[in-house]
Amino acid sequence: MPKVKKDKGKLRIIPLGGLHEIGKNITLIEYENDMVAVDCGVAFPDEDMLGVDLVIPDLTYLEQNQDKLRGIFLTHGHEDHIGALPYALRTINPPVYGTKLTLGILKNKLEEHSLPWEPDLRTVSAGTTVRVGAINVEFIRVNHSIADACCLAIHTPLGTLIHTGDFKLDITPIEGEMMNIARLGELGKKGVLMLMCESTNAERAGFAPSEKTVGASLEYIFTKNPQKRIVISTFSSNVHRVQQIIDISARHGRKVAVTGRSMLNIVGAAVELGYMKVPKDTLIDIGDIKRYKPEQLTLVTTGSQGEPMSALYRMAYSDHQQVTLGRNDLVVLSSHAIPGNEKLVGRVINELARNGVEVLHDAALEVHASGHACAEELKLMMALTKPRYFMPIHGECRHMNANRELALEMGIADRNIFLSEIGRVLEIDAKGARFAGAVPAGQVLVDGYGVGDVGNIVLRDRKHLSQDGLIVVVATVDEESSLLLSGPDIVSRGFVYVRENEPLMEEARRLVQKSIEKCLGGRQAHDRMHLKNTVRDDLSKFLYSRTGRKPMVLPVIMNI
Amino acid sequence: MPKVKKDKGKLRIIPLGGLHEIGKNITLIEYENDMVAVDCGVAFPDEDMLGVDLVIPDLTYLEQNQDKLRGIFLTHGHEDHIGALPYALRTINPPVYGTKLTLGILKNKLEEHSLPWEPDLRTVSAGTTVRVGAINVEFIRVNHSIADACCLAIHTPLGTLIHTGDFKLDITPIEGEMMNIARLGELGKKGVLMLMCESTNAERAGFAPSEKTVGASLEYIFTKNPQKRIVISTFSSNVHRVQQIIDISARHGRKVAVTGRSMLNIVGAAVELGYMKVPKDTLIDIGDIKRYKPEQLTLVTTGSQGEPMSALYRMAYSDHQQVTLGRNDLVVLSSHAIPGNEKLVGRVINELARNGVEVLHDAALEVHASGHACAEELKLMMALTKPRYFMPIHGECRHMNANRELALEMGIADRNIFLSEIGRVLEIDAKGARFAGAVPAGQVLVDGYGVGDVGNIVLRDRKHLSQDGLIVVVATVDEESSLLLSGPDIVSRGFVYVRENEPLMEEARRLVQKSIEKCLGGRQAHDRMHLKNTVRDDLSKFLYSRTGRKPMVLPVIMNI
Repeated sequence: MPKVKKDKGKLRIIPLGGLHEIGKNITLIEYENDMVAVDCGVAFPDEDMLGVDLVIPDLTYLEQNQDKLRGIFLTHGHEDHIGALPYALRTINPPVYGTKLTLGILKNKLEEHSLPWEPDLRTVSAGTTVRVGAINVEFIRVNHSIADACCLAIHTPLGTLIHTGDFKLDITPIEGEMMNIARLGELGKKGVLMLMCESTNAERAGFAPSEKTVGASLEYIFTKNPQKRIVISTFSSNVHRVQQIIDISARHGRKVAVTGRSMLNIVGAAVELGYMKVPKDTLIDIGDIKRYKPEQLTLVTTGSQGEPMSALYRMAYSDHQQVTLGRNDLVVLSSHAIPGNEKLVGRVINELARNGVEVLHDAALEVHASGHACAEELKLMMALTKPRYFMPIHGECRHMNANRELALEMGIADRNIFLSEIGRVLEIDAKGARFAGAVPAGQVLVDGYGVGDVGNIVLRDRKHLSQDGLIVVVATVDEESSLLLSGPDIVSRGFVYVRENEPLMEEARRLVQKSIEKCLGGRQAHDRMHLKNTVRDDLSKFLYSRTGRKPMVLPVIMNI
Repeated sequence: MPKVKKDKGKLRIIPLGGLHEIGKNITLIEYENDMVAVDCGVAFPDEDMLGVDLVIPDLTYLEQNQDKLRGIFLTHGHEDHIGALPYALRTINPPVYGTKLTLGILKNKLEEHSLPWEPDLRTVSAGTTVRVGAINVEFIRVNHSIADACCLAIHTPLGTLIHTGDFKLDITPIEGEMMNIARLGELGKKGVLMLMCESTNAERAGFAPSEKTVGASLEYIFTKNPQKRIVISTFSSNVHRVQQIIDISARHGRKVAVTGRSMLNIVGAAVELGYMKVPKDTLIDIGDIKRYKPEQLTLVTTGSQGEPMSALYRMAYSDHQQVTLGRNDLVVLSSHAIPGNEKLVGRVINELARNGVEVLHDAALEVHASGHACAEELKLMMALTKPRYFMPIHGECRHMNANRELALEMGIADRNIFLSEIGRVLEIDAKGARFAGAVPAGQVLVDGYGVGDVGNIVLRDRKHLSQDGLIVVVATVDEESSLLLSGPDIVSRGFVYVRENEPLMEEARRLVQKSIEKCLGGRQAHDRMHLKNTVRDDLSKFLYSRTGRKPMVLPVIMNI
């Protein structure tokens, strides 16, 4: 086991996202005056973050220390690893390193945002080592559900850290090479100070199946359904999956049409950058599918998570411009529902079933392979790199705990395993490793153009409004005489169907009128806050007693 | 295959719920002037039914034909089969037939509602036949995840219909008998006119495991964890599961404490009615657990679906009065997440993991067995009853379609399989069976005390409010002179954090002021609708351009 090199400075490892959560992955590595960041991703909002579009990491610490920041190093092109960059690059502009496909996808994203400067994107390949200050960052090939993914060996004066990014071992990858286990083993031999290892699938036993097994299932489906049009839905970023679909279609004499904005974007970029090879005359425009018989066609579409307004969703609800599905169609969901999306996916399946469309999904056939290492692959990573210290990253608490159990199984000492959390600083020096304080970290909500202007108060109000709706009470009062000049008027939204409940609303209006008149005639006649509170309390009590509901009550008192 | 008996009247089969959906199961069987209903359940609201507590079937047709209604026959005591009765019994009061446990649970429910009359509950047993008018209803034992469940053979002058309710075949049930396949076979021999068969698990191959397999897994867990306190969460209505937990605990020298309101209710009722046998001195009060060591205790709790405020949820979030969980505890989720609840369950698992609690769930060990027949059991039901006509019930479209495929496999002719929907009438007479029109059917939303007063408009408003919040604009105008006397004031909720966005709100106020003054100075000065629309449009456009959000804008103009 490698010792920490002597007489050196301090190394600090600071995850700003991706621990105790899925997504918004970002980890900082600091050695004295040099800092590098690994990834900068988004997370998708929880169902209680009403109206929120995206969640990005709190990057305060990164911004405050931008003079030390030598570069952001991207492991691969998934949203949860690159999606926060368009927001980060509004205030900082460090060099961003990534492989060709990763930066290709990032460029597409950045074009949708206006930045105050030209971003400094630097293309590297697996095998490249980038020297920044006292730190060398080496890109090492891994397999994942997107092409051109890498893990990183971060060589520091105190030793080598390995950050796995997201990975799996695919012994028979569709294109490109198998994970570079030889290099990882070599580093392990030399001595790895710390392994930061993804945890997504740590609860799953065995190995993740090769992407090739999906091809075999698809081949079987194509062979069994020579009469039907075949529609396959998958993640647009899964270039290898789409490549397999194209190859199999070509073998079966089918043309392939692509639909869905992100699918068109990524297939375009992948073909252009050479990550996808399309046999001549195989790809056709979705507008041309009418020229072919159903059995001559494969459609590749977005919408595998049941996303409303995705191409598959629109097909299911008969709202797609070019595609109408029916008994002649077979839909394959080549994906797995992300937790929280099960009901959305179920709805699309039911809507398709209602139209007589046959649907195949991963419960029945192996039409999807996870891109994340399962238990045996995680253990293989540990066995190869033989790290002194171990930190589970990328996952919820349950996944990190499971990864820790695997590390214990592999003989890593309990005291050398660090279950960290975002913002928490792990310090390593000649004496060893320990937690040492914290930096600001958390989540920043993006809603429309607003970044960070939606917080707990706004969300609490949205939740309240969503449950029982709203009652606005408006009255105009003469400031001097404290006489009610106009109103009260009551307006409700989302509370009750007003037309059928006019007696209730009229009763409420009279109740409020009495409350106001009583207040105006009393000692606190000029205390508008007292008046508002009285109206709110009286009306809330009345409505709850009648309906069992607690709408938000908003009294607005105008003075003249 | 039985022929329809000649020279008889018309039989009508009308599902009012449970088809193309999960829950709110109810089916009507009409023969001339006699009608019976099977079950009367609730469904749980979809995530887009904001603020809605429950969904019940539209019972208009039942109410309009109450003079024909001879009884409501309950197959078992689950919410989705009995939960709408407290609402149905507000307007009608037919005899309600069910087994002892089913009516025991129903009685508990009815006590929470005030009905205009004493409900007419009539206890039957498996094997009982109830004669009502020209129809005989026979209760036949089935196995399910609740004790005392039955399917129904509905003998009519035109032939026998079988309604499976929810069922599985459990060859080694915990208590009571195996499904009465002998009687079903006997009926099949005599001739079954129609099988209405549940579809929940029709997509799953094989047989549902016996409840006993769960006992074996639990036994293993108890044996492997002699030092820990064991906390098991399951559905409170699963009396047999709780019985097993009690028995195993007693064998391992552990006391059992029960927590969670519904768990206490059901265990109480089950013990009282003799459905649960508790070894002497095994059950203790949750308040007494401090007297025992962790390894002497088993806790049985609600919350297996991660429901906020359930006992397990409160334990996970350190908010349970008697139980604090930690490294000495093992939590077993003896359940399967209902689609849509995966994230809730995941949160509880993570929160427990964060506190160092070990969690076991059905992904790793067989700690749950479904109560619904899988493909082979459904085929067994068809093989036993050999029905002339087949109708898949109880399930979403995908499940009904899968059940149809099984029926085709079993040799039932396509033309004799009826994929129906709620409200659709299937008519059977001497000439055969056919769809014949429809009756009112649908969903009625329950919110607080209100039944049916929340509809699409209210839900649309709640959705809108939940996404981007609300802006109220209030102004007072002199009716005669059309002068702005006061305001405009702008109040927002759930839109943006106001304190940090005062310039934006002030700009919005000035914009609205201009809009109002322009309107009041123009030709349509007295047209308040025009004024409101102008304010709404101008402000919405402004806010969208600045924030990318579309809050609900509510202009209130007061006249003096």
